[in-house]
Amino acid sequence: MTADRIFRIVAIVLLMAGSVDVYGADTVALPRPRIRGQFMKSLKNHVTIKGFSTKDLTDQVLADVLWAGFGVSDQKTGRRTAQSAFNMQEMDIYVLSASGAYRYDAHTHALKTISGSDLRDIVATQPYAANAPVHLLYVADYGRAEKRVPDSYRERIPSWAMMHTGFIAQNVFIYCSINGMTSVVREVSGVDRLREALRLRDDQSLIMSQAIGYSPR
Amino acid sequence: MTADRIFRIVAIVLLMAGSVDVYGADTVALPRPRIRGQFMKSLKNHVTIKGFSTKDLTDQVLADVLWAGFGVSDQKTGRRTAQSAFNMQEMDIYVLSASGAYRYDAHTHALKTISGSDLRDIVATQPYAANAPVHLLYVADYGRAEKRVPDSYRERIPSWAMMHTGFIAQNVFIYCSINGMTSVVREVSGVDRLREALRLRDDQSLIMSQAIGYSPR
Repeated sequence: MTADRIFRIVAIVLLMAGSVDVYGADTVALPRPRIRGQFMKSLKNHVTIKGFSTKDLTDQVLADVLWAGFGVSDQKTGRRTAQSAFNMQEMDIYVLSASGAYRYDAHTHALKTISGSDLRDIVATQPYAANAPVHLLYVADYGRAEKRVPDSYRERIPSWAMMHTGFIAQNVFIYCSINGMTSVVREVSGVDRLREALRLRDDQSLIMSQAIGYSPR
Repeated sequence: MTADRIFRIVAIVLLMAGSVDVYGADTVALPRPRIRGQFMKSLKNHVTIKGFSTKDLTDQVLADVLWAGFGVSDQKTGRRTAQSAFNMQEMDIYVLSASGAYRYDAHTHALKTISGSDLRDIVATQPYAANAPVHLLYVADYGRAEKRVPDSYRERIPSWAMMHTGFIAQNVFIYCSINGMTSVVREVSGVDRLREALRLRDDQSLIMSQAIGYSPR
């Protein structure tokens, strides 16, 4: 066994132990992540979106998705499943499905009917989103936010709404990944038509949409 | 048994079955969410931040947190644990700890050392964040993003960076909640000092910070 070979074996052993820097002086090796448990496995195994089957969500699955996204996790404190700066809770989730358009009322965990029309075509402009049984719309209520945020931070509200949408959408994404579903966050198409159909006030803003459902086949 | 009483019992049975609208004509009741499994329970049980103990993260926990946040989940495709618009993957996670400042290199799953100094005091300006063993900094590389995004969408990049930060921070949040840890997303303090200490380029932007660790006691 040559010295070079011994050196290599020692290096590999140390590398496996995560205790040596083989990348160079400026690099610190990290232990391999432990991909254990439902959550870490869902991050590992989620499938990139290819499109949707027409399979619908059950009421139970829709209820779970909405609660995971931005439900009330503690009735006593009103705490939500996603945090928000200054606890402004400015985000609302609107639901577009075959049966109509709804606003999720987290505090009563119910849907408020806004329209009995199927508005999905307005947002499902890309072919891969066409069959999605449900589109969630993330709507920021800037009026509500401004009541909770000091004036000096007001200009940050639209930015925070994007981040809060990220918190909520990631909860939905993980729920879908765990439950054999698929989801994709998308820019909102047909903003003007949607604003009218959903009767949004001027101080409400359509931030993003998220198509959810099941993979084809 | 009075008719009123019978009516009430029938109403309760229907309500429990989730099949009747007791809120009014415009409200659709939803089944109660199924709070089962690691993920849904973590959303239910997470504890609101009260502060941090000085307990440090092990290398393994830090490795897990970074991978969950924005690691590479598939080496072949380079797919990440959080999605990004146009797959721009513009976000970098910087790590501030007692031993120094680092950039997480997701593709080699290693830390690149940037400074041997403890920079945590620059961001830990609020008392409750003072003891946090680790602060993550979310940095958007706009130069990288612009290479991947069509010109017509360029102005959306800073907004998307906020949402992508939300995706990543929510992964970190859920990891912490599952593993008995605590985390809080915060505005970045001391931006100018940090930019210099981390040697950020002009086209990199400090988006948010996230303090992570363990609750006191």
